[in-house]
Amino acid sequence: MNLNIIREKKALIPSLLNEFGIDMWITFVRESDTMKDPALDLMIDRGVTWQSAFIFAKDGREEVIVGSLDKDSIEASGLYKNIKTYIGSIREELRKTIEEINPSSIAINRSADDVMSDGLTCGMYETLCSILKDTPYIDRFTSADPIISAMRSRKTPAETEKVRRAVEITEEIYDRITREIRSGMTENETADIVRDEIKKRGLVPAWEASHCPGICAGAESAEAHAAPSDRIIEKGMVVHADFGVKFEGYCSDLQRTWYILKDGETDAPDIVKRAFEALDDAIQSSFRAMKPGVEGRVIDKISRDVLIRHGFWEYPHALGHQVGRSTHDGAALLCPEWERYGERPYIKIEKGQIFTIEPRITLKEYGAITMEEMVQVTEDGAVFISHPQRKLYLINR
Amino acid sequence: MNLNIIREKKALIPSLLNEFGIDMWITFVRESDTMKDPALDLMIDRGVTWQSAFIFAKDGREEVIVGSLDKDSIEASGLYKNIKTYIGSIREELRKTIEEINPSSIAINRSADDVMSDGLTCGMYETLCSILKDTPYIDRFTSADPIISAMRSRKTPAETEKVRRAVEITEEIYDRITREIRSGMTENETADIVRDEIKKRGLVPAWEASHCPGICAGAESAEAHAAPSDRIIEKGMVVHADFGVKFEGYCSDLQRTWYILKDGETDAPDIVKRAFEALDDAIQSSFRAMKPGVEGRVIDKISRDVLIRHGFWEYPHALGHQVGRSTHDGAALLCPEWERYGERPYIKIEKGQIFTIEPRITLKEYGAITMEEMVQVTEDGAVFISHPQRKLYLINR
Repeated sequence: MNLNIIREKKALIPSLLNEFGIDMWITFVRESDTMKDPALDLMIDRGVTWQSAFIFAKDGREEVIVGSLDKDSIEASGLYKNIKTYIGSIREELRKTIEEINPSSIAINRSADDVMSDGLTCGMYETLCSILKDTPYIDRFTSADPIISAMRSRKTPAETEKVRRAVEITEEIYDRITREIRSGMTENETADIVRDEIKKRGLVPAWEASHCPGICAGAESAEAHAAPSDRIIEKGMVVHADFGVKFEGYCSDLQRTWYILKDGETDAPDIVKRAFEALDDAIQSSFRAMKPGVEGRVIDKISRDVLIRHGFWEYPHALGHQVGRSTHDGAALLCPEWERYGERPYIKIEKGQIFTIEPRITLKEYGAITMEEMVQVTEDGAVFISHPQRKLYLINR
Repeated sequence: MNLNIIREKKALIPSLLNEFGIDMWITFVRESDTMKDPALDLMIDRGVTWQSAFIFAKDGREEVIVGSLDKDSIEASGLYKNIKTYIGSIREELRKTIEEINPSSIAINRSADDVMSDGLTCGMYETLCSILKDTPYIDRFTSADPIISAMRSRKTPAETEKVRRAVEITEEIYDRITREIRSGMTENETADIVRDEIKKRGLVPAWEASHCPGICAGAESAEAHAAPSDRIIEKGMVVHADFGVKFEGYCSDLQRTWYILKDGETDAPDIVKRAFEALDDAIQSSFRAMKPGVEGRVIDKISRDVLIRHGFWEYPHALGHQVGRSTHDGAALLCPEWERYGERPYIKIEKGQIFTIEPRITLKEYGAITMEEMVQVTEDGAVFISHPQRKLYLINR
């Protein structure tokens, strides 16, 4: 699809290899329709069937080796010249190619920390090792994490524009929800507004359609990652929604919260208002601290501290993740120092990266209150890409 | 989606573990929206975000450990009880669970040969090893390949019925192509017939929409795995198509070939007819040899020998693959003893498995001629699920 962007991104690879001191990078994949290495999207706009290797060297050399039946398709992309092919086994061609480049370090798509850089499966790794048996190259493997992360997170102006447009559309759809949501509707009927608008625009949801949008009404509703149900929205409930759209390959990811007034009520209950204000403070405070060079954990901590200062508690997830071609894009993460985040809390944020900020307070009586905004890191700070929800939406119907 | 089928399949796991002498099977995954272990479809109908473990033991014990925010969604599937959760790290809960089961063998989703059984990434493997450090369990890993293959390939009657329906629909769509295809149309216009019919029925293509359908007109067109282009179908061309649909989660995969008569011609050129007949003979001969216990390579060899006996040459791919929830389903494969197929040519075919048979002859002057049929292995032979194309379609317009 985005051939131009792939071309733009791919052209950066040699300089990134030089920046990170890596001689060669190999993406080694098969049957990408079944299970696709997320890095493949950075180098080709279509799939491969047989074992295939996409190789980039520091000196700008590119080598692509694919099964003979995939050749025409890869060639038709116009992205690669001199595609090598094989019928029986990729072994000979692949080994020869690597021996010619003779790299002193080889980046492979292996990362305990970042799913986007972890596309190499155990079986494919085994095959690669078997092909390179009795060569010095197996000992020279390193993670492609820094290359992939930089390719994903350093957004070009064209990429930023597409994310901005995805955010704009998402906000338009949220406006329609605010106009139409009312007690008596189900979560699924609310979700239908989003599904309808996404379809009408010829777009797709930013993540799996079964839980994009996520709509949660009231305290009993699943907190997150859950599919909308036929639960009825009632007066006195907090409702929150979580969704994004994919616009020309680029994603948005925003959350919004509403309160459905009870008969006679003119405002939300005090505890709900206080939670909303605490979240707003957390978002704005974290946002103000963002600039290149700051570790993600520092930003996350600011948000947690604000919530606690307001008398609330910590959220059970990261404050924010990067957004781009995927809604979990790039290794740098605004997250606490929990084991499941590995080294990610310590990665410094960089100019051009786009993050969500999404603290959460779950109130036992009302359910989750959460706003999710999107910001981009600039030379010396950050700018909002979304228009933050700074007032709780009160619904009087 | 197919909750009932997942329930049916999942119930088989303890007996499969006993059959293959494996104590415990673990599927260890994260962010399945980004890169999904194909085995996950066999145990749950929705995704997970954080590191998650699905564990099955020989004695029927099931353990699911997911991040706290995924719990409600997994629970809502109704497939699992007593779901364990964590916030900071899965380490403690996962290690404790495995220690309790204390398995003497642990199947993990690692396979050099079969992509369907190779969902464990290098990074997740690293994490698993780190969690099990200083335990005896790392040395007890084995491939889950036999379990996953058996779950996929042994079709229940309900599954077979869905595949049959997918094939039926595909044949209906092929009939429409045969009625409408004509010189002057482009490959893409022909593909639009398929796209239109799939959409009209509320279905999706069996594989990536960019090359499902594949439509190839004439000698210049890409052989396989290629997207349809704006190339115009001309008189005197061979046209072939390759597509399938997904019906209630189950796939079809068929190919058909047409010849567009030149003005004044009443039949296809002799070489085209001879190639068609050789392929027909190859399909029927291979089909007749299929029965439980025969190795895939034997069936593939029959087909190659027939083509050579007819004066043609071998095709550069496998004769046939299994079809089910995916179009490359299960490890057993009708393929030659080429390195890229690993151990797969030596796997014996089993009752209940559904295979394609798809030999191919590429004629320099005309392009590829190929029919792809689908058959199911029975107690003592095989039956056709598709209605084989036994006559070349001649188009006189």
